Amino acid sequence: MIVDDSYTVEPWALSETSLDLATLPQSESVFALSNGHVGWRGNLDEGEPHGLPGTYLNGCFEFHPLPYAEGGYGYPESGQSVINVTNGKTVRLLVNDEPFDLRNGHLHSHQRRLDLRSGLLHRTTTWTSPAGCTVKVRSTRMVSFTQRTIAAVSYEVQAVDTPVRIVLQSELVANEALPTSSGDPRAAAVLASPLEAEEDEAQDTRLRLIHCTRGSRLRVAAAAEHVVQGPHEPRVTSESSADVARLTVISTLAQGESLQLQKFIAYGWSGTRSLPAVRDQVEAALAAAKATGWQGLVDEQRRYLNTFWARADVEVEGDTQVQQAVRFALFHVLQAGARAEQCSIPAKGLTGTGYDGHSFWDTETFVLPLLTYTSPSAVAEALRWRHATLPTARTRARELGLRGAAFPWRTIDGAECSAYWPAGTAAFHVNADIACAVMRYVSATDDEEFERSTGIDLLVETARLWVSLGRRDNRGAFHIDGVTGPDEYSAVTDDNIYTNLMAGENLRGAADACERHPGRAAELGVDIREMATWRDLAVRVYMPYSDELQVHEQNAGFTSRQRWDFESTSPEQYPLLLHFPYFDIYRKQVVKQADLVLAMYTCSDAFTAEQKKRNFAYYEGLTVRDSSLSACCQAVMAAETGHLQLAYDYAVEAALMDLNDLERNTKDGLHIASLAGAWMALVCGFGGMRHAGHSLSFAPRLPDALKKLTFHMQIFDRRLRVEVYPNHSVYTLLKGARMTLRHYGVEFEITDSASVLQPIPSESPGRAPAQPLWRRAAERSAAAAPSHAGGRSATAMQQQGP
Amino acid sequence: MIVDDSYTVEPWALSETSLDLATLPQSESVFALSNGHVGWRGNLDEGEPHGLPGTYLNGCFEFHPLPYAEGGYGYPESGQSVINVTNGKTVRLLVNDEPFDLRNGHLHSHQRRLDLRSGLLHRTTTWTSPAGCTVKVRSTRMVSFTQRTIAAVSYEVQAVDTPVRIVLQSELVANEALPTSSGDPRAAAVLASPLEAEEDEAQDTRLRLIHCTRGSRLRVAAAAEHVVQGPHEPRVTSESSADVARLTVISTLAQGESLQLQKFIAYGWSGTRSLPAVRDQVEAALAAAKATGWQGLVDEQRRYLNTFWARADVEVEGDTQVQQAVRFALFHVLQAGARAEQCSIPAKGLTGTGYDGHSFWDTETFVLPLLTYTSPSAVAEALRWRHATLPTARTRARELGLRGAAFPWRTIDGAECSAYWPAGTAAFHVNADIACAVMRYVSATDDEEFERSTGIDLLVETARLWVSLGRRDNRGAFHIDGVTGPDEYSAVTDDNIYTNLMAGENLRGAADACERHPGRAAELGVDIREMATWRDLAVRVYMPYSDELQVHEQNAGFTSRQRWDFESTSPEQYPLLLHFPYFDIYRKQVVKQADLVLAMYTCSDAFTAEQKKRNFAYYEGLTVRDSSLSACCQAVMAAETGHLQLAYDYAVEAALMDLNDLERNTKDGLHIASLAGAWMALVCGFGGMRHAGHSLSFAPRLPDALKKLTFHMQIFDRRLRVEVYPNHSVYTLLKGARMTLRHYGVEFEITDSASVLQPIPSESPGRAPAQPLWRRAAERSAAAAPSHAGGRSATAMQQQGP
Repeated sequence: MIVDDSYTVEPWALSETSLDLATLPQSESVFALSNGHVGWRGNLDEGEPHGLPGTYLNGCFEFHPLPYAEGGYGYPESGQSVINVTNGKTVRLLVNDEPFDLRNGHLHSHQRRLDLRSGLLHRTTTWTSPAGCTVKVRSTRMVSFTQRTIAAVSYEVQAVDTPVRIVLQSELVANEALPTSSGDPRAAAVLASPLEAEEDEAQDTRLRLIHCTRGSRLRVAAAAEHVVQGPHEPRVTSESSADVARLTVISTLAQGESLQLQKFIAYGWSGTRSLPAVRDQVEAALAAAKATGWQGLVDEQRRYLNTFWARADVEVEGDTQVQQAVRFALFHVLQAGARAEQCSIPAKGLTGTGYDGHSFWDTETFVLPLLTYTSPSAVAEALRWRHATLPTARTRARELGLRGAAFPWRTIDGAECSAYWPAGTAAFHVNADIACAVMRYVSATDDEEFERSTGIDLLVETARLWVSLGRRDNRGAFHIDGVTGPDEYSAVTDDNIYTNLMAGENLRGAADACERHPGRAAELGVDIREMATWRDLAVRVYMPYSDELQVHEQNAGFTSRQRWDFESTSPEQYPLLLHFPYFDIYRKQVVKQADLVLAMYTCSDAFTAEQKKRNFAYYEGLTVRDSSLSACCQAVMAAETGHLQLAYDYAVEAALMDLNDLERNTKDGLHIASLAGAWMALVCGFGGMRHAGHSLSFAPRLPDALKKLTFHMQIFDRRLRVEVYPNHSVYTLLKGARMTLRHYGVEFEITDSASVLQPIPSESPGRAPAQPLWRRAAERSAAAAPSHAGGRSATAMQQQGP
Repeated sequence: MIVDDSYTVEPWALSETSLDLATLPQSESVFALSNGHVGWRGNLDEGEPHGLPGTYLNGCFEFHPLPYAEGGYGYPESGQSVINVTNGKTVRLLVNDEPFDLRNGHLHSHQRRLDLRSGLLHRTTTWTSPAGCTVKVRSTRMVSFTQRTIAAVSYEVQAVDTPVRIVLQSELVANEALPTSSGDPRAAAVLASPLEAEEDEAQDTRLRLIHCTRGSRLRVAAAAEHVVQGPHEPRVTSESSADVARLTVISTLAQGESLQLQKFIAYGWSGTRSLPAVRDQVEAALAAAKATGWQGLVDEQRRYLNTFWARADVEVEGDTQVQQAVRFALFHVLQAGARAEQCSIPAKGLTGTGYDGHSFWDTETFVLPLLTYTSPSAVAEALRWRHATLPTARTRARELGLRGAAFPWRTIDGAECSAYWPAGTAAFHVNADIACAVMRYVSATDDEEFERSTGIDLLVETARLWVSLGRRDNRGAFHIDGVTGPDEYSAVTDDNIYTNLMAGENLRGAADACERHPGRAAELGVDIREMATWRDLAVRVYMPYSDELQVHEQNAGFTSRQRWDFESTSPEQYPLLLHFPYFDIYRKQVVKQADLVLAMYTCSDAFTAEQKKRNFAYYEGLTVRDSSLSACCQAVMAAETGHLQLAYDYAVEAALMDLNDLERNTKDGLHIASLAGAWMALVCGFGGMRHAGHSLSFAPRLPDALKKLTFHMQIFDRRLRVEVYPNHSVYTLLKGARMTLRHYGVEFEITDSASVLQPIPSESPGRAPAQPLWRRAAERSAAAAPSHAGGRSATAMQQQGP
């Protein structure tokens, strides 16, 4: 994986068995730890070498100017970028008089292991210094799920063959030098050294740095406490300056002796609280963590994850790499959202600076479904963050001449940061994506209080947006003109089906919520007439259709466009947007990512089974998957239309997006939505799970390679297990009252007394549809799944022939 | 005019009778002098106060980065901006020990007068210094049409009532401080001090500065020679430093005595020649100018303009303001193009820095028609400049995945500088505009040599572009998808009729030229088959039409769009692009500027008379004229469809665009295309002149307010005069062999023996079509035309009610 063979395939961990400096940046992303509030990239303890040093606090960003050579009305003037805050990971080591640096001396062994059940990142290395002195270093690192402001490191160094003088430097470092990025020099200047020093302190084993960002005026505090254990009473001193606070431990170890350091780091940030308040906040958190102790934190972490896996685990028999990948995916999605708590879930989580740390529609569309059925409280928090940004979204709607709220295409604090409006402002579907996430969460959890206090506001304001954005034609159909759907290879089109259908759901959901909460509806100024309008428009949304081809049109006129000339496009010319001008891409039939195909999954009832088959086949021939969000959607619809091998190929692609670095940018952070997509491909694809309102249905069917698929879900206050075998599936109610499910459209009941077995009907879907030349999914076979082999198989997509 | 009453209305001059500091920036534009090679804004001799100091050399620019917050394939990385080169205008005056500065002391009188027949800018002022010493200053300035690198100043100061010690400082100044512009700070930094000093010299009465631009590496030389005349042997010294060369003249004048200074300035620039070569070039030009002498230059200028007016004059009886405006327009268009000689004709000429000094499609579409019939050699030069940029245009086409050549939307040196592709790269019609300018020039002049050496290359390469850009549908129609037409309130549309028809003309013209020049065609690789394809596609261009409304669609689907809500748009919300987002403007029926209406003029035969009437009426209701290029086109089609009062209103608007500063940006330079449009409105509107191939036709008809319109044309090696009266017109052949014309479609012959009188048929066109609320043209009546009154009448458009 990650282009090399140093990673092993195993069900509950990701292990790297040797160090490859070439893939260090990617390893920092896959080994990143986070709880959604604090994020640490998997940088080496000693800080160097590194790909990208990274310590992130969710929501902690800096402004920078957005430059336009030719500006326009409504263009956002200010960008936002996540900043690298005070690094608390660093523990430097001096062996006699030589720094422990893996680029020098001799490295006997180096292992890193991310344990998905314990939530710990382990590292073990044996190294001989250039002068010939050998040490063994063991470190374990965590970002706590239970104490959200806390991260901790356990570090141990052992003298292997000779006595050795050891100096450990445990640090807090602000304004680390970062590799230069190639963007706007003014933005780079702002982000290069984002923190202004306010206070530094070192007292005994305690360190503290407090800084403030220059533009966004966010106060950032980091504090560390240490426990040192070792023979011969190690000498411990500490010191601090504006950007560095340092604890120094000096010890001489005899052969076989070890020096141990436990480091607890507390983070805090605030845009409003005073310096003393933020200082006290981190000191209090630190005191609590120290009181819990290292082992206490480790135990809490394990218990937290046990609970998570009981709710969320997916077991795959027949493809150990996919088994590993889906658990890796579940773990990282949990890390991204677990404790985000009224902050966004960025596209890269807190694993890197890709997309500037922004959140997009994929949070609601790809990440929140997984969390809805596995960690619903994280969904409520993510949507509360959207709710908190409603004033900004209302202002933006006014600015655009619209009613209601217009949520941003990309943002950290809720303000629009997209500088290219045809693929930003015009992508209004983000508003329906948010609304549908509300509806999904509310119907799955029956969290009436959330709907009343939070959800209804989001539903009403987005519904109002659609009314002002769309129009009724003289035959009564409801059109939404001039918008961009999920597929960014068409832009500013009329009647994008995905947008229209999702807007319809949004309108209907708003009316339903207002009916359930008449008091709140009245507060929001919603009257009977407005609700009637919403219901009326919801059934009138227009779905362009080509009678000639008997397929739906992704947007009006789409199928009349010229087909992209795939035969004349070479494999090196993908992704297309880096090799062809937008004007040419936009005017032709070519699809970057599932759009109509996604609509057939999210708005399943709007299409007949026959339409789904025809549409899926047609758009398969046009979809080049130049977005990481595509394969998982195609997997789901390939499965629904019976093309199980194709679904499997796509599921594997989604699952290995980061582990195999398929888009060559895992170094910038993980693709959280594609990771969630791996779950979606398995559960909604091979499990055929669909949830709408209070209905939950399944239509499971496995590809040949898989022997069994098991997944867990939490929904309607129940916990379920679904086991899928080649010819039948087994439904088990693990917790909660009896309930009705559907299996291939037929209702049945499950109770806690016994599992229910259902046979899987056989089907012959016919020949699988063709994809564009050079962009077929790599064919996955069971034989392709052994350890060390899958990587090349899936990345082969980049090079394969017709 | 220019919002105040200090300008007089007179037929052959523009006179300002007092100084208004508030309109100084505008006055600098309207009093700008230029020959197309050197441009001097009408800054005061003493340099201050000023709006924008400006000295421009056509083609002399600097690069600057084009910033993109979100970049894209094919986006140009480098912008270009005209730079303010060495200022040779400045003559400072010290009166006793006080600087002559109109902001201090007492200003008794101040007149400036641009004489359109002599081509001289005169200034006369009487001023009393704060200490009470009165002087009279008279200066005359010229930029020579006959010696293209030469400008000259005659300056005289007279002691009025007391003896006075005078110090004159005549300067060359590089890197003048400019008012800050609000754009990208990096671009501003580059342009603030664009010249690197290479050499400075002052010897006796001769000054010289040589600089080089930093990025574009253009060497710029300016040299000045002086003749001083005055009583009591004035003391003359000179000195120079890197950015200033100065001649100082000291004299004491008795009451009534005068000191006179003549200053000759030569400019040269080159991207290739050495410093000694450029130095010699300016010294040689200066020697020639000094040998000609001030009076010699004045005489040459007058002779040059006499010839021009004989070819080009337009006389208007019944509206003295329009009379003045059209001559002002002709003069400035001449100034922009007369000696451009293988440089472009920028949108603002050399009168200011608006649009960064770039050239657009309006050169070929609006400016070159006027010059074709009045100064054809300037047209050949402008097109030779396009030809010189063919290699760049070919490279650009490849970059865009197209064949042939893709000319830039905006440029100085031929490279694309547009940073917003939907209104830049997508506006492919510029290529057909260039091709049609070639065809117009060649058919008007029979300049076969030009066609063979230059024109055919432009025609062939643009024809190839269209073939690769368009597509044939399965019914055989030729479509061009995803382009932006002249109307920038629709963008990236399919089958823009203007683009399609113009592309058809282009294809046909290329085939015709290749038939006439088979040898050159073969050299260009054009074979019979390619020519046949061009002819075939030319007749197959698709023209979208609404059967329901019985009008053509500006582009496919246009008439199905939602109408802009004009009733809810307030007058302050125009121009729309400054108050509404593009997404909303693009998706609705609203027209920034004539597009289909322009097509009905440029491709007149593609529409029936009835279609023209219906189309014109329909698009009148949607056109808001947020571009200065619109009114003149609407004037022409209003006249053709018989709405003469409306045509008159639009003609006046076009004519007064700058004199009344209708768009509030005359300070940045004149709207050369709108000035040319004033001519177009009169000649093609009220004269009904149409030229296509070897046919020349007229359909004259005057609005009630005008008593007579006379215009001159040079075409087919003849010179014509056309006089239009209310009920008849008179055609006179002033020079050349007998020829056939058409009057209202009927052929007749004129010879040099006698004028031909033709009656004008009467017509009742019915009610004039309505315009959008708040955007109706100001109604012009004969009563509105007296001096000092017209300004308010025409600018009233901004405030008028429904």
